[in-house]
Amino acid sequence: MKILIKNCNLVSMTEERKKYEENIDILINNETIEKVDKNIDIKDYDKLIDATGKVVMPGLINTHTHIPMSIFRDTLDGYGLQEWLNDRIWPMEDKLNEEDIYYASLLSCIEMIKTGTTCFNDQYFMTNAIISAATKVGIRAHCTRTLMDISGDIEERLEELEKLINKYLNSDMVTINVGIHSLYTCTKECVERAVDLAKKYNLYVHMHFAENSNEIEDIKKLHNTNNPINLLEKYFKDIHLVLAHCVKIKKEEMQSLKTLDINVAHCPISNLKLGCGIAKINDFIKNEINVSLGTDGQGSGNNLDMFEVMSYTALLQKGINEDATLLPAYEVLKMATINGAKALNKESKIGSIKEGKNADLIIVNLKSEKTEPVNDVFSNLVYNARGNNVETSIINGKIVMENRKTNIQNEEEIYNKCKTIISSLA
Amino acid sequence: MKILIKNCNLVSMTEERKKYEENIDILINNETIEKVDKNIDIKDYDKLIDATGKVVMPGLINTHTHIPMSIFRDTLDGYGLQEWLNDRIWPMEDKLNEEDIYYASLLSCIEMIKTGTTCFNDQYFMTNAIISAATKVGIRAHCTRTLMDISGDIEERLEELEKLINKYLNSDMVTINVGIHSLYTCTKECVERAVDLAKKYNLYVHMHFAENSNEIEDIKKLHNTNNPINLLEKYFKDIHLVLAHCVKIKKEEMQSLKTLDINVAHCPISNLKLGCGIAKINDFIKNEINVSLGTDGQGSGNNLDMFEVMSYTALLQKGINEDATLLPAYEVLKMATINGAKALNKESKIGSIKEGKNADLIIVNLKSEKTEPVNDVFSNLVYNARGNNVETSIINGKIVMENRKTNIQNEEEIYNKCKTIISSLA
Repeated sequence: MKILIKNCNLVSMTEERKKYEENIDILINNETIEKVDKNIDIKDYDKLIDATGKVVMPGLINTHTHIPMSIFRDTLDGYGLQEWLNDRIWPMEDKLNEEDIYYASLLSCIEMIKTGTTCFNDQYFMTNAIISAATKVGIRAHCTRTLMDISGDIEERLEELEKLINKYLNSDMVTINVGIHSLYTCTKECVERAVDLAKKYNLYVHMHFAENSNEIEDIKKLHNTNNPINLLEKYFKDIHLVLAHCVKIKKEEMQSLKTLDINVAHCPISNLKLGCGIAKINDFIKNEINVSLGTDGQGSGNNLDMFEVMSYTALLQKGINEDATLLPAYEVLKMATINGAKALNKESKIGSIKEGKNADLIIVNLKSEKTEPVNDVFSNLVYNARGNNVETSIINGKIVMENRKTNIQNEEEIYNKCKTIISSLA
Repeated sequence: MKILIKNCNLVSMTEERKKYEENIDILINNETIEKVDKNIDIKDYDKLIDATGKVVMPGLINTHTHIPMSIFRDTLDGYGLQEWLNDRIWPMEDKLNEEDIYYASLLSCIEMIKTGTTCFNDQYFMTNAIISAATKVGIRAHCTRTLMDISGDIEERLEELEKLINKYLNSDMVTINVGIHSLYTCTKECVERAVDLAKKYNLYVHMHFAENSNEIEDIKKLHNTNNPINLLEKYFKDIHLVLAHCVKIKKEEMQSLKTLDINVAHCPISNLKLGCGIAKINDFIKNEINVSLGTDGQGSGNNLDMFEVMSYTALLQKGINEDATLLPAYEVLKMATINGAKALNKESKIGSIKEGKNADLIIVNLKSEKTEPVNDVFSNLVYNARGNNVETSIINGKIVMENRKTNIQNEEEIYNKCKTIISSLA
């Protein structure tokens, strides 16, 4: 299948950092971006998309989420993290079955597609149901079977994870990674077993880290250490590590992280809502640590609109550092695209619009009351465009949304199904 | 004209703080809410709106903005406040004519209507053009002719303002207030003349205050004082005061403000983007100071979507105070509605859905990928709904938007006009 996109305004954050060109054509051949140029003059396309006056940019990459948590939207207000998990979420999660997980994930996949995300990095359980939903909608999925051993049997979970790894070893659209819940819910043994698995299959590890102050205290106790930051060096040498949150890493501790292969998945909205604080993203960048973005699950992150996450990311760093010149918009767009690809070990495949890469891209219409006039396209995308400005999404060369219609016939049916699920858990 | 709204889910923040009722009918008779009840059974309506499953809530009140600044959207990235004003904005503003102001304001009025705002509190110049745009779209306008005397002639400006006051003395839809730019751009004489005018006509004063650290230093010099906070007591005794920003008011200074009639117009997005910081809203509330919300102009505030402002307001206070229980969603909805009405001295007329009040209300559809499932309607409105979920808006009993169509025939023409204006200023 050949798709020809005509006349777009191309936005792409590559090694040269920032690119904006008008009147560009893009030729997609099966799953690949074949050509990016002015006036591509071919006739044998299967599908022509006129993108005159519209932005085409790489699909957004959500590097930390829990997509079955869509059904827990708006259940948090007024709770702290530990209280919310212990008293509300975990008792409800215990009652979830595979069908619940499938429909809850389907809702999230629809939400992601309709807000410009083309790839997500998840951490949950009943992973086959999550993957089924992702496959149904056509979104690129990075999944795991989350490991933890302060409650539950680690052997069974490791076995489940290894089965998943083998099942999707050669998949284009599904990548399995090793999910460690956190160092306050996993003992030394559990972490070491997980790391062994990551090494055996050359996978990255995806873990919550330094989300709030309580967590730091709990890690100290469980791992009998005064310095949880040092545990990273102890456990994860030579491991590609995606660390969600990192709110409680201090400036002076960052230096010591530079010897490790660490990627910070920044989830500013979730961190604020849970009262965790604000991660020092500007300092991670200064220390040349790769920062990507995530929504977290909807329970704490509200929704999966990565445009909102971009806006919060840029504004918070300017605000808390009292410096309006920090984090220009294109840097934040990088975080949501190419840095995300880097975090997920997929830099050569996705994250920018480049000949030879997989065709994961979105068409954004900035002709709207909240975005006009467009004086600076990078700023406009970060601060004013939102998921609903995304018109069309293409993932791995397939159109998964066109003019805001996904391939799910009746979205309202999914909404109703999810309402029934959450009622059944209360 | 009688409008009957059937079967809505009513959200209204009144004296009892929080109200949610399902299957409510609302009868609007000319400009007034005549009845709010279950099963209103009349036949002589002129217009029936079926709001089954939809939220009806008071229209949002934006208590600090500069609506002609729509054309400066996305011009700020990388500048500090004073630099941006001196080097970019003021030279461009000098070239604006009445027609420019009219079209730029029209764009903002469309943006406000389409994102759920039904009343705004502005500070700018060429005020007649702003009022013309507001009248065209049908939005409730609180305007002024901004006063300052460190540059320009104060006599002419005062005269212009007094003319406006007299012209709109008996208007329902247009209210003139006394706009003082700030204490760093207005001398003692200018402030005193402005206050005299406010007393003569019993008007409130709308002023920028304590936006950033530089400002505090400049006020100290211009007014020869060590304590700018004390100036409020000196100049504004017995004046109803709307103070935009108040970022640099410390906790311990709030006590002394309680003897004054102060309303804080919190503009969190603008404050972050300009690198000013984060106002201590939670402490203002503890000190029983009325807090309302504002977007500021688009140059610094990005857009006029008050739903975004609500989300930032709630999340920032939880985050910086590291306490997830602070500012429950309904408190933030109050700030955007009834507290805004209080700030603008219109509490008896607007800000809640109550029999006898003016009919300023919006119909919000929460059936969307970012808002489903709705587990808590207050949280959903604050954290997930955005301007684009607003379907229909009624102001002073007139439908100004229905199913997302305003009474402006060709919005794209206005967009194009605004593009031309900004090009002509560069």
